[in-house]
Amino acid sequence: MFIVDSVQDIQDMARGAVLLGTGGGGDPYVGELFVRAQIKNGRYPKILSCDEIPDDAFVLSIAGIGAPSVIVEHLVSEKTLHRILARAEAFYGRRVDALISAEIGGANSMFPLALGAISGIPVLDADGIGRAVPHIEMTTFSIYGCKATPGIVMDDSGNVITIEAVDDRMAEDLCRVVTGAMGAMAFGALYPMTGKQAKSFAVQRTITQTLEIGRAIRTAREDSRDIFESLIDYLNSWDGRTARILFDGKITDVTHDTRDGWHFGRATMTGLQDSTDECVVEIQNEFLVCRLNGKTITIVPDLISILDRESGEPLTGEMLTYGQRVKVLGYSADPMLRRPESLEVLGPRMFGIDEEFQPIESLLASA
Amino acid sequence: MFIVDSVQDIQDMARGAVLLGTGGGGDPYVGELFVRAQIKNGRYPKILSCDEIPDDAFVLSIAGIGAPSVIVEHLVSEKTLHRILARAEAFYGRRVDALISAEIGGANSMFPLALGAISGIPVLDADGIGRAVPHIEMTTFSIYGCKATPGIVMDDSGNVITIEAVDDRMAEDLCRVVTGAMGAMAFGALYPMTGKQAKSFAVQRTITQTLEIGRAIRTAREDSRDIFESLIDYLNSWDGRTARILFDGKITDVTHDTRDGWHFGRATMTGLQDSTDECVVEIQNEFLVCRLNGKTITIVPDLISILDRESGEPLTGEMLTYGQRVKVLGYSADPMLRRPESLEVLGPRMFGIDEEFQPIESLLASA
Repeated sequence: MFIVDSVQDIQDMARGAVLLGTGGGGDPYVGELFVRAQIKNGRYPKILSCDEIPDDAFVLSIAGIGAPSVIVEHLVSEKTLHRILARAEAFYGRRVDALISAEIGGANSMFPLALGAISGIPVLDADGIGRAVPHIEMTTFSIYGCKATPGIVMDDSGNVITIEAVDDRMAEDLCRVVTGAMGAMAFGALYPMTGKQAKSFAVQRTITQTLEIGRAIRTAREDSRDIFESLIDYLNSWDGRTARILFDGKITDVTHDTRDGWHFGRATMTGLQDSTDECVVEIQNEFLVCRLNGKTITIVPDLISILDRESGEPLTGEMLTYGQRVKVLGYSADPMLRRPESLEVLGPRMFGIDEEFQPIESLLASA
Repeated sequence: MFIVDSVQDIQDMARGAVLLGTGGGGDPYVGELFVRAQIKNGRYPKILSCDEIPDDAFVLSIAGIGAPSVIVEHLVSEKTLHRILARAEAFYGRRVDALISAEIGGANSMFPLALGAISGIPVLDADGIGRAVPHIEMTTFSIYGCKATPGIVMDDSGNVITIEAVDDRMAEDLCRVVTGAMGAMAFGALYPMTGKQAKSFAVQRTITQTLEIGRAIRTAREDSRDIFESLIDYLNSWDGRTARILFDGKITDVTHDTRDGWHFGRATMTGLQDSTDECVVEIQNEFLVCRLNGKTITIVPDLISILDRESGEPLTGEMLTYGQRVKVLGYSADPMLRRPESLEVLGPRMFGIDEEFQPIESLLASA
């Protein structure tokens, strides 16, 4: 258990959440501002590890749903957060014992912390994916047996929808169209689960990870140590996981295309050491695949992040611009995401990429 | 009170419902088949007038929602109807005392009769518009103060949505997108109301009207009397209402265009007596305006129907084809629909027609 009682911790967590967002998931900035204001008022989010709650605890995900660009501009209000909780408890017919993030990468790292701060309900140090993904059915919750619905989607005008979908692919479709009708931004109470399910189906210790990623970057910057060395050292300290700087270069071309609520794009970078080296990152909300001189070196669900090469600040897909000097980071996904049942749902082919998943460590060994 | 115990009555009702559908509302044929099968098995829908139920009775609309072309092809199942009722009673927390059609014109004339037949719940001799309209917020229920939600939308695969919208325009948007995600065909339980509201806000005696319209056409045909004379005589027998044959001609041009789930079109007819006479009917799901040689002679919310000139069978917009010989009928809407508060919601400008509503009787007097 730990208490988030410092504004700096929330800033670090938001930075870490952008890195784990792998370019997508929405900018957590608005949520971060909200939680910072709570901490200044002495309302501190309490974080529990999953093994600190009983098996029969009632755990719920609270999330913002919508186009990332809209989430960023949308201020969440305390009233709306209280309404979600009240509605959810009435709908499920029981008190919420703990909150959990559906997706730690990006904006949805902050929603449970925001509600946790104002309600006093603890937030679990875990989430449903350990990164960002564009669809509900791609979470480990969905993949390993905890359905997203029955759930609630509401906006802050007073429209409330409850959804009971036959599967999470349908839940995704319904949430998406309802959110569209609500003006591209809504709030969801989804994935009702037991404490036991949270222990089994969630990716563990991911709030800790956002905090420590953000802190590694900040402290290295403050102490004038090498930011990327500190970051890679930290990430490699996680058991069985591999982090590597994949490329050091300058963005020479970047395309952005928003259609059907998705952000499609491609960033092309040229090497700073050797200008004949070319690195291409394909974007579909998230950074999906990184190719060095035409050869794949990291691919979804392994994580790709792009960071400003001076400040070490992680960047979202929308932030990338021509001429930026960046480093590309590759990081192995949590082992849960690499199992065959996960790859069936969130492997490269689910994004239209005609390649098999290969772990970053194998790709780099053969590069 | 009357009992619908003859297959012929249901056939007549369906015919009358197509006429009141003014080209839209979906073909009631599939629902008609279902109710005919019930009647053959001795399960008869019971029709009550609104003044036969207590003021505090709980009245609910059951409707098919979706693209008319899909409704036509979609067989409703007894299981699905039972599920709607069970879900609705659980959701509202009380037994349904009576069913009411939201829209008597077209397919939704039959859904309450179908559920009434299998459940024994009486159906009110009334509906929410007395014709067909494309949007939820255009019903007299909505206009005069009975909201469509809280309500339920479900499909027959097991997906269930509850909706609580801030207004009926939003309810319309949410129903439309949810139905789209469900494959363009869903079932709704909407407009929870009291017996008192049904007495005040519904258009009265419209089931009787469908039956008697269909019967007037059929019996004239059987007795070799003039079908249109019989029909006009019947319609004019309604207090304060005017029916007239607007045109007798041949379809010389017809356009159909389906976009955003709407059917847009235009039928152009040439006179059979005088081939220089031209009649144009503009279609937007329903027949909206009829112009004779460029002059408007009937306009929404007054009713325009197009009938086969030999059989007297009313036609939907999708049925119109080049070369068909038809008669165009104009009929004044129920007085409730002509009040200023109604015209604000379902007058010509709400369909993008830059004209004021004028009653058919004035338009014809000045023609």
